Amino acid sequence: MTTRQDCLVLDAQDPLASLRDQFVLPAGRIYLDGNSLGVLPRTTPKRVAQVVTQEWGEDLIESWNKAGWIDLPQRIGDKIARLVGAGAGELVAADSTSVNLFKVLSAALTIAKADAPERAVVLSERGNFPTDLYIAEALAKQRDCELVLTDSPDEIGTHLASGRVAVMMLTQVDYKSGRLHDMAALTRTAHEHGTLALWDLAHSAGALPVALNAAGADFAVGCGYKYLNGGPGAPAFVWVHPRHAERFWQPLSGWMGHAAPFEFMPDYRPAAGIARYLCGTPALLSMAALECGVDSVLAAEPLGGMAALRSKSLALTDLFIALVEQRCAGQGLAVITPREHGLRGSQVALARDVGAYAIVQALIARGVVGDFRAPDVLRFGFTPLYVRFVDVWDAVEHLQQVLEGGEWRDARFNRKAAVT
Amino acid sequence: MTTRQDCLVLDAQDPLASLRDQFVLPAGRIYLDGNSLGVLPRTTPKRVAQVVTQEWGEDLIESWNKAGWIDLPQRIGDKIARLVGAGAGELVAADSTSVNLFKVLSAALTIAKADAPERAVVLSERGNFPTDLYIAEALAKQRDCELVLTDSPDEIGTHLASGRVAVMMLTQVDYKSGRLHDMAALTRTAHEHGTLALWDLAHSAGALPVALNAAGADFAVGCGYKYLNGGPGAPAFVWVHPRHAERFWQPLSGWMGHAAPFEFMPDYRPAAGIARYLCGTPALLSMAALECGVDSVLAAEPLGGMAALRSKSLALTDLFIALVEQRCAGQGLAVITPREHGLRGSQVALARDVGAYAIVQALIARGVVGDFRAPDVLRFGFTPLYVRFVDVWDAVEHLQQVLEGGEWRDARFNRKAAVT
Repeated sequence: MTTRQDCLVLDAQDPLASLRDQFVLPAGRIYLDGNSLGVLPRTTPKRVAQVVTQEWGEDLIESWNKAGWIDLPQRIGDKIARLVGAGAGELVAADSTSVNLFKVLSAALTIAKADAPERAVVLSERGNFPTDLYIAEALAKQRDCELVLTDSPDEIGTHLASGRVAVMMLTQVDYKSGRLHDMAALTRTAHEHGTLALWDLAHSAGALPVALNAAGADFAVGCGYKYLNGGPGAPAFVWVHPRHAERFWQPLSGWMGHAAPFEFMPDYRPAAGIARYLCGTPALLSMAALECGVDSVLAAEPLGGMAALRSKSLALTDLFIALVEQRCAGQGLAVITPREHGLRGSQVALARDVGAYAIVQALIARGVVGDFRAPDVLRFGFTPLYVRFVDVWDAVEHLQQVLEGGEWRDARFNRKAAVT
Repeated sequence: MTTRQDCLVLDAQDPLASLRDQFVLPAGRIYLDGNSLGVLPRTTPKRVAQVVTQEWGEDLIESWNKAGWIDLPQRIGDKIARLVGAGAGELVAADSTSVNLFKVLSAALTIAKADAPERAVVLSERGNFPTDLYIAEALAKQRDCELVLTDSPDEIGTHLASGRVAVMMLTQVDYKSGRLHDMAALTRTAHEHGTLALWDLAHSAGALPVALNAAGADFAVGCGYKYLNGGPGAPAFVWVHPRHAERFWQPLSGWMGHAAPFEFMPDYRPAAGIARYLCGTPALLSMAALECGVDSVLAAEPLGGMAALRSKSLALTDLFIALVEQRCAGQGLAVITPREHGLRGSQVALARDVGAYAIVQALIARGVVGDFRAPDVLRFGFTPLYVRFVDVWDAVEHLQQVLEGGEWRDARFNRKAAVT
């Protein structure tokens, strides 16, 4: 059985250990919720303060040129592109994931309809992150399409084979179970059946190697505030394969996506390439923080980059699963995240019939921060940039104590907060 | 003729003078561009730093409850509502103006179509801010409507009388000329002809009294980074009259607009009231700065609020117009902003056949910051919260010197920057 000492040795040998020094970690806590909100990079407070006091406070509108505000969506986009297997100039940081999804799903449906008018299905999974389903529901209604939701990944191929699917819209890593889809294989199958493939990378960008171009994907969106450490509500990103980027005006045709925004012309003329997927003026304070977050992931490049981070992530989640099974056996926990590496993201989800919410609260009270997802899931994220092997060991130690002592039955852990 | 000494006396007598102390003003400059980007409130750096280092860095996801992140769009929305004549619970801060315009124009077209299916015109002005026109152009195309643009405000009534207009979409104060529409009268006329009235308050919220409910307006959007001093790219706002708010799912149906976002249900169920106009996770750093900016305008409430700010604003623009006409006569400048108070916003636009861009650059080099709007407009904004009468005098002094000395002909003032 792995001991705490073994974990300290693993940390001492970890070639990525120094990356942790980039972050301000919350005092006295083991933070296993980077899949909800990544931690604060040390560079961020100073950079945000510089934008506030110097670029805004002192230079004001001059900063559009002098500080390069106008280029930020592309500059940050190019950096994110390196993390998700996209090319420079193919991706921009902008708006929220939901808004970006609206843009690309609109584009995908328009392109699909032009190429194959009889196709009228948007295919997704019932377990997909709700905001994706809500946006798809509204767009499907607007376009007279049907939103078809699968209950198991095994059904996806059958639906694609029907020849009715215009767009397959999947999140690469399931937000709840942590299950990872094979992007390349599913995209290939979709294309074989004449379907466009749209990927949400919310739980994969910065968490594991993503290869959008190698997979031949059509569209992608992703989140800035999870594994990219961009801060609460950080701008999201949007990628469109160059073969599609100029085929369509996306309907959120705001001035930042215009070919010449500062010429103030009354007619819309979309910018070349991905820039037409911009809409309004970007939230620059949040954009500045996003860039620091993305840089914190890019800092792994000299140490092996996403591949090295992936190896550590799998080692962390392997260890967590093994320790939970060894030390919490008979406590009613089921590991619902796949064991197979090829099917696992960077988190582990445990299900328990009773008390899942309260156990998460009891752990938080002890300083182990995971989160609860209704109805019965305890979710633990392992961001390889800053989670250590000893953190995994200590987290399971606390989990075992919470379960064995029955501490979670305490009333204070069973009162639900507004946001859980 | 007004002297500089007269202006110093006016400032000494100004009952709003103390409000200026709320801001960090750029050293050695006269800033007349608050209609493009408002200045930095003194409270903002500390508040943003608190969100970054404490709420994000230390408390992390706990801040959704503990720091009230989840309520920010409504909390800030209620504050903005006080500035624009709307009720509590009727307005939210979210996304960009362009994105919000997409939401409300979608809603307006859907409602108009339900009530009067034969109406298929969106009416606006050719001189409206381009992003508004771009969004309307895309939506009109999508909904098989026609976007009709007037060249003069006098034409609006004629178009409304045609009975074909579904939605009248106007910006209350023209971004270029500074012309102010009579919101109450135009809304009344629109309603008499069965047309919905949608107002963009980008250049009026925080600049002059706005009375959405008293005017009976139907929809409104506005900008957070101009007269609300919310910082570069600050989130915008959206208001829907309660009689319409629940009639329609707006198509950007993201999870923050769901009735129960943290229940993670696969089906969309819109929140009650204006909350359904939220979409994705808000950019919280930018939201925090927006709140400080809105508070800087609300600080005028004990001193007479928007009515007092309006009096000062008109006194400032009256003075600027008078001094320009006295001191720059014969220099080819035409005042294109209306003289009549009821038709004037909080800026003055001057047109000049030749050299408008270079004159603006020469003024900036002297520390007088206005901006250029193609093809021939010099635009000067007078934010009554922080612009003094002596600033007006000094600005005109510099303008006179730049024109009389021919300084603007210098080559360095004639090179265009990327963003002008």
